[in-house]
Amino acid sequence: MSSDFKAGQLIAPPGSKVQGTLRVENSDLELPVTLINGETSGKTVIITAGTHGGEYPSVETAIRLANQLDPQNVSGRIAIVHVANVPAFHAKMQYVGPDDGKNFNRVFPGKALGTTSEKIAYTITTELYAQADFQMDLHGGDLHEALVPFVLYPSGVQEEIESVSKEAASLMGIRYVVGSLSTNGTYGSATTLGLPGFLAEIGQCGLWNEEEVTSYLRGIQNVLKYLKVLPGEVEDYGAITYLPKMAGVNADHAGCWYPAVRLEERVSKGQKLGEIRDYFAKILSEYFAPQDGVVLYVVTSLAINVGDPLVVVG
Amino acid sequence: MSSDFKAGQLIAPPGSKVQGTLRVENSDLELPVTLINGETSGKTVIITAGTHGGEYPSVETAIRLANQLDPQNVSGRIAIVHVANVPAFHAKMQYVGPDDGKNFNRVFPGKALGTTSEKIAYTITTELYAQADFQMDLHGGDLHEALVPFVLYPSGVQEEIESVSKEAASLMGIRYVVGSLSTNGTYGSATTLGLPGFLAEIGQCGLWNEEEVTSYLRGIQNVLKYLKVLPGEVEDYGAITYLPKMAGVNADHAGCWYPAVRLEERVSKGQKLGEIRDYFAKILSEYFAPQDGVVLYVVTSLAINVGDPLVVVG
Repeated sequence: MSSDFKAGQLIAPPGSKVQGTLRVENSDLELPVTLINGETSGKTVIITAGTHGGEYPSVETAIRLANQLDPQNVSGRIAIVHVANVPAFHAKMQYVGPDDGKNFNRVFPGKALGTTSEKIAYTITTELYAQADFQMDLHGGDLHEALVPFVLYPSGVQEEIESVSKEAASLMGIRYVVGSLSTNGTYGSATTLGLPGFLAEIGQCGLWNEEEVTSYLRGIQNVLKYLKVLPGEVEDYGAITYLPKMAGVNADHAGCWYPAVRLEERVSKGQKLGEIRDYFAKILSEYFAPQDGVVLYVVTSLAINVGDPLVVVG
Repeated sequence: MSSDFKAGQLIAPPGSKVQGTLRVENSDLELPVTLINGETSGKTVIITAGTHGGEYPSVETAIRLANQLDPQNVSGRIAIVHVANVPAFHAKMQYVGPDDGKNFNRVFPGKALGTTSEKIAYTITTELYAQADFQMDLHGGDLHEALVPFVLYPSGVQEEIESVSKEAASLMGIRYVVGSLSTNGTYGSATTLGLPGFLAEIGQCGLWNEEEVTSYLRGIQNVLKYLKVLPGEVEDYGAITYLPKMAGVNADHAGCWYPAVRLEERVSKGQKLGEIRDYFAKILSEYFAPQDGVVLYVVTSLAINVGDPLVVVG
């Protein structure tokens, strides 16, 4: 027999679904959250969306998933944060939040008395991750990123966490599954709490469509079956390309950015990725692949600033 | 025999092309500008690009046009402002500038001692429009706008200005040519100086491609031929659809935006254009076509704020 599923003021008794807001500690901010508590016991899974401003397929997926899931079919508990970074969502800002200029996915596990991004991370960590068995963080190419779908799983961590995370990541129906050493984002931080999981990327350029949302929903349901939280057979969605690590290049000039590679193009270390020119077409700097691999995302804005990501190869 | 073509500190003697920066009066801001002074006399044409943050095809067009034009072929003078709103370009902000939150295309003719946007407008008005015979302002769908190409010309102004502006706009190779009553943007303000011209829109969603730039270059060269600034026959690019006026709807709730119409769809007055829902999919408000017409642009961001444009019908 399950017990109540609680997060902040929200309480979902066994066999129920509750929707409402989770107050971010020490702030006026509220996160839209759905708690689903199955009638039978099982794993507790946290799903977060909208970590960065323009990751719209993730938010739409979270909204639909929350409405579709029926607690009668759930064994265990699912918490869905529909929009984690509400300030960045409404500011339509890429990478960082409007209040503190911080990348929300670099401030985990957060701080109770930190900046807005840190407080949100702290609330997700303490209210949700602390009681969880698995987490999925849904992202997408940010406002100016063209991106081929991929999934990041924590590598270089406890072997059991890494293998569960990698196996689950491989069930998302996404071809590229990539190891990551990050420690201050959602999945990296979660592993320090003993929590396996992954970060998925579907969608790009501040756009969203039905195909992306359908792909996300299908993959998440497959992982929930793998975790035995939903009934049914786990499906095999075809060949996976495992990539050991990602490496990117960042702008060292402000100006206009001209990529020289396409998404999913296979590049060799040292191959030219693009160039930055001034407003009169004079070349200011050129960028080259830091490793062999596949182009996973390419920044699409003509405008570029010092420090901006340009291309990531996995 | 032509005389020197001057703007700020830039001086182009007859038969020359000069590239450099035009200092915005009473500020540290500099605009990248090309002055082309033909060997033979003729009209003076001002071309501006990058008025809003994400109008990348216009900026790339300005850069290429500036490099392609040969003063030996030019009769008259052409000034090209490669990026008019440099602060918004680098802030990657839609609609408004980062310093003052003002829409640059609503502050013309500008103010010498105003905000950043107003000072830029003032500099363009006094240094360029004041000595011009024609102006073309190159725009595009902003960062979150899906847009079918169209051209706006000033209507309800002096008959001669309106007819020249409309005729030139019809030579851009863009199907939709739309009358506008705006007075505080580039073309509306220019008419008060006796200056015909238009505002063109090609490109969308913070993206740009070769096809858009090629289309822009071809259209501008055609208009320069019409103005006798470039030699050659004016070309006919096919059927034009004239639309008397645009009308749009704006958001009255913050939340998630779901358009119900496609670009170029013909809609009837009162037809549903879309709806705003909260983070749990509950409908907050619905929006309906304010007039019969063609859908010229649709906002694409899932995130929406009070006052944001949603759909414009022409």
